[in-house]
Amino acid sequence: MAATLHFYFDFASPYGYFAAHEIEALAARHARDVEWHPVLLGALWKSTGITPLVKVPRKGEYARHDWDRIARLTGVEYHEPAAFPIATQAAARAFIAARRVDRVGAVKLALALYRAYFAQGRDISVADTVLDVCADQGWDRATMAASITDPAIKDALKDEVALADGHGVFGSPFVIVDGEPFWGWDRLPMVERWLARGGF
Amino acid sequence: MAATLHFYFDFASPYGYFAAHEIEALAARHARDVEWHPVLLGALWKSTGITPLVKVPRKGEYARHDWDRIARLTGVEYHEPAAFPIATQAAARAFIAARRVDRVGAVKLALALYRAYFAQGRDISVADTVLDVCADQGWDRATMAASITDPAIKDALKDEVALADGHGVFGSPFVIVDGEPFWGWDRLPMVERWLARGGF
Repeated sequence: MAATLHFYFDFASPYGYFAAHEIEALAARHARDVEWHPVLLGALWKSTGITPLVKVPRKGEYARHDWDRIARLTGVEYHEPAAFPIATQAAARAFIAARRVDRVGAVKLALALYRAYFAQGRDISVADTVLDVCADQGWDRATMAASITDPAIKDALKDEVALADGHGVFGSPFVIVDGEPFWGWDRLPMVERWLARGGF
Repeated sequence: MAATLHFYFDFASPYGYFAAHEIEALAARHARDVEWHPVLLGALWKSTGITPLVKVPRKGEYARHDWDRIARLTGVEYHEPAAFPIATQAAARAFIAARRVDRVGAVKLALALYRAYFAQGRDISVADTVLDVCADQGWDRATMAASITDPAIKDALKDEVALADGHGVFGSPFVIVDGEPFWGWDRLPMVERWLARGGF
């Protein structure tokens, strides 16, 4: 059995959003399973001193232009949210709670949360909005409301971030497969070549 | 006549080195000419506050790993130089002097200078080494020695950097074609899609 592909993402990351639309199909073409790992970039960047992209002169403008053209290129709807970036703890905790119950349903929920934020202009830093999205996706709202404040789920997210940090993850999206790290939406073709060739 | 593709690069940039091996063939596949623009990243970064990649924790280690695997993937010989990064004024001035005489010969010289630094362990921050490479490539050593200290050539390099800065260039490699900016070796496939589709 070939090793699982690990997909690290932050719910406030536009490049993570675009990659989230491609990663399952990419892995499936090479008979790999995907494990989705929500992370908090702010926490990961504390240990590296990395500055958020949009705050760097030139790079920030370039990235905003880039997100719009990736949307045109891929056909994935994207509108820069009014509040950006945002805290993504609520969304990440909802995903983790969902993943414990139903892996496939959790991936659908992740895409729905991403779309709520980047295509529908909904602020998923607000727990109520996250719960609305969960309910839309068929999750029990009251159960999910309890989950996202459950200390066990909070700890599970902290563990995810610590684990990502331990694996050297410093951006979103970040793929690790066969121990090999790939940072960025624009490296998905390289991930695909890695999987096709069995390494290089 | 389709617009020229502008290729900005720093002679101390590993990603620029890899891209330099691909850009001519890529442009030729779409009947585009390439104009090569040597830049000085240090000067461009002054106006943006961008930190050199290898000095950022995690990103630096990732990049070093990445350069080795890109070399394996593309078959382009690469060894991290003992002195890295370095000042690239001498190499850039030699290239500019060469470009005034012979565009095709200048591109060959750029690749030879890049290979000297990244494949042969030669320190091209040293003017004598640059002149050795020029002589190897059939350029008159004395003429080139005069050129790289010629105030007109020094000014031409400053103008190149200012022009790049004015066009929003903040990294290497950086491609601008049809007014559209693409940053990074890993965006060459996107440049190719842009050229194939005539934009997106």
